[in-house]
Amino acid sequence: MGLPFTHLTSTKQLSRSDTDAIVGVAQDMEGILKKGGCDLLRGKILGSLFYEPSTRTRLSFESAMQRLGGDIVTADGIQFSSLYKGESIEDTIVVASQYCDIIAMRHPEVGSADRAAAVSLVPFINAGDGPGQHPTQALLDLFTIQKECGKIDGLKVAMVGDLRFGRTVHSLSFLLGLYDKITLVFVSPKELTMPEKVITFCKEKGIAFSEERALDAALTADVLYMTRIQEERFTDHSEYERLKSVYTLKAAHLKGKRTVIMHPLPRVTEIATDVDALPNAAYFRQVRNGVPVRMALLAMLLGKL
Amino acid sequence: MGLPFTHLTSTKQLSRSDTDAIVGVAQDMEGILKKGGCDLLRGKILGSLFYEPSTRTRLSFESAMQRLGGDIVTADGIQFSSLYKGESIEDTIVVASQYCDIIAMRHPEVGSADRAAAVSLVPFINAGDGPGQHPTQALLDLFTIQKECGKIDGLKVAMVGDLRFGRTVHSLSFLLGLYDKITLVFVSPKELTMPEKVITFCKEKGIAFSEERALDAALTADVLYMTRIQEERFTDHSEYERLKSVYTLKAAHLKGKRTVIMHPLPRVTEIATDVDALPNAAYFRQVRNGVPVRMALLAMLLGKL
Amino acid sequence: MGLPFTHLTSTKQLSRSDTDAIVGVAQDMEGILKKGGCDLLRGKILGSLFYEPSTRTRLSFESAMQRLGGDIVTADGIQFSSLYKGESIEDTIVVASQYCDIIAMRHPEVGSADRAAAVSLVPFINAGDGPGQHPTQALLDLFTIQKECGKIDGLKVAMVGDLRFGRTVHSLSFLLGLYDKITLVFVSPKELTMPEKVITFCKEKGIAFSEERALDAALTADVLYMTRIQEERFTDHSEYERLKSVYTLKAAHLKGKRTVIMHPLPRVTEIATDVDALPNAAYFRQVRNGVPVRMALLAMLLGKL
Repeated sequence: MGLPFTHLTSTKQLSRSDTDAIVGVAQDMEGILKKGGCDLLRGKILGSLFYEPSTRTRLSFESAMQRLGGDIVTADGIQFSSLYKGESIEDTIVVASQYCDIIAMRHPEVGSADRAAAVSLVPFINAGDGPGQHPTQALLDLFTIQKECGKIDGLKVAMVGDLRFGRTVHSLSFLLGLYDKITLVFVSPKELTMPEKVITFCKEKGIAFSEERALDAALTADVLYMTRIQEERFTDHSEYERLKSVYTLKAAHLKGKRTVIMHPLPRVTEIATDVDALPNAAYFRQVRNGVPVRMALLAMLLGKL
Repeated sequence: MGLPFTHLTSTKQLSRSDTDAIVGVAQDMEGILKKGGCDLLRGKILGSLFYEPSTRTRLSFESAMQRLGGDIVTADGIQFSSLYKGESIEDTIVVASQYCDIIAMRHPEVGSADRAAAVSLVPFINAGDGPGQHPTQALLDLFTIQKECGKIDGLKVAMVGDLRFGRTVHSLSFLLGLYDKITLVFVSPKELTMPEKVITFCKEKGIAFSEERALDAALTADVLYMTRIQEERFTDHSEYERLKSVYTLKAAHLKGKRTVIMHPLPRVTEIATDVDALPNAAYFRQVRNGVPVRMALLAMLLGKL
Repeated sequence: MGLPFTHLTSTKQLSRSDTDAIVGVAQDMEGILKKGGCDLLRGKILGSLFYEPSTRTRLSFESAMQRLGGDIVTADGIQFSSLYKGESIEDTIVVASQYCDIIAMRHPEVGSADRAAAVSLVPFINAGDGPGQHPTQALLDLFTIQKECGKIDGLKVAMVGDLRFGRTVHSLSFLLGLYDKITLVFVSPKELTMPEKVITFCKEKGIAFSEERALDAALTADVLYMTRIQEERFTDHSEYERLKSVYTLKAAHLKGKRTVIMHPLPRVTEIATDVDALPNAAYFRQVRNGVPVRMALLAMLLGKL
């Protein structure tokens, strides 16, 4: 089972049959994980290129590669030296292509992933390009919804917090657009509303959505996707201080509710730790789901399925 | 052969039968090393999480894991990004638990290891928590004493230098308390004496000990454990300058003596390089012993023995 | 097939029969790469010690080791903590020797590689010591010339740019001195001419050479080896600004010419991107050649051939 593309840079390139295939393979990968991994990618090398540190995403990719028997070469954040010497991203990727069989890259600039994919000599996966796309996160979010709810069609999904800079909620919105009868609820302060590109997408796709200010509007959804107000995206620190704790989900909010709680992590104060013990607190399971989903993508893009 | 605990955060949790078991397995691991390693931990992943850089300890753990056929995911010091985003250590560990089968963590705060172990979903090893504990160092020290002296019971062990902030000498003192008829000699400037917790421990255990100022007091011990005056533990730099070279062990001090010289390394000026060539200079062998000891711990905590 | 030395720190220690052997084994390694690697170094660990970041060289070594089935322990630049604690390079290397079977080290100081090799307990490879030597780069350059031109004897090789600080052109000059009837053309601004040590070497070896200011002088060579003006080697930034773009090779310069274009990368402005598409633009193939050459060296120094 392959995919009709060589590089994965955006959720926008995915069709419903692609996501169905990825979710299906990820389920198989969970079986492989239970048996302690396999040798499917023995002899293959993942180039893990992180221009911006992201322990979570990087370790998830590297774990996935190793669970399939593959190896890793890593260049992480600060020590990514060629950058300092003025090398273009295109040159860096052509060079890195010589050392590995597949690349996962995190980069702070929007569009860097497309530039990289355009020249990569090996399959390329966008592991986040600044406030742009983060398709593997969106796919693991989708896989989590499927596992937690048993389906995706027909669900009401609320997204809460920083919807303006929150790359994950943009990518997930685009993916959910592939499914039938989705309802989206966007809850944010007015300074951090969903950008026009997502709103326009919903209108064009005919997705039912509403924009709200109060957390209450999200509590009755099937899925409540919480996000962190990201300090690093603010130039005005006082604005960050004012907004950072505007939503705090507590166990008391969820009394008697079965809403599946998700979060891309790390969280700060937006989900109180008393939520962690609830059976519908899915965010740590969501993290775990990143491994089988990335195993699926690595294997599929390397043509090993 | 297992251990009666899942996580190793402190030498205080070890019994004599635990240390006997670990020393025994480490000896077996030396045999495996001589044969070029084995596949005992094939398919297992070590999460090597260093919030504070420590090349020595990290490489030792990673080498040990690979000698047993296992894989590694590493997050080292500066690039440990989630920390910067305000994530709690508990969340970081729950997340990291999803990516690996066992964790080794170095962290600058005392108590961080216990907090991490409390939530870790996989076996957890403290690789140093600030001025707190560093149990694998203490175990490799113990293994070195056993190998160099052929026994541990009945020995006279002198510890010299920064006994106040020197985590390794605290952990080793607690471990030696498991053995019979140990005599300890603590040599330090008055600003850097053994903390009350170790003195109290010695009194409670009935361990013979003395506190000294002069290096001479240490030269007739069976083992002389030298430590570095750690610049990074001082807030007043002039105090560091005054104390840093207060003890310098030279070959001349050791003429005709068989005292085993140990040091956790790195050393600066506290052991002159003319000591290196002496047959009783054990500090580089001590470093090497870190590998079989950590192989033993990884295998035992993963239930593979 | 072995080599008559344990450590590789300089191209000066290589004889013609050594380079012939290395080139031959590297050719075999290309065959192994085509088949997806092998298990020749299974169970062996490369210690990859980079005191100065160098993604390119480090990833190349690590990829080479993994293509042969070996493992890696890495200490990269900023996190190389023992350095901060005042440890000597000799101690660091003796310690690192305990954790691995072969070491590759990049260090900013000239002569550091020789100091390290003098104490290393395992085979040691210099991966660049400041403005000193970088023998594996020179060997991959040589291998590239052999592959691109089908021979090395009798060639005219032009070196252009920063010949003063450009470590790679020094090392390559010394290597080319092993071959017959080599002609060298050194093109640089007068502030960045070849150092006396290379000029003297050419005279002693009877190598034909000329020193030029204009790029034109290089265009008719068999090989044109372009280098970057290295910002990090200048103390006076205005001098860097003045010199940085003094030579810019463009496709127009190469019209109708078959000159093989090489560059150690990263490039900034010294080769226009319109050169990339020319069949004689060899610099990305040159990068790729680093892998089989380093595979050859790792295997030969570990006595596995």
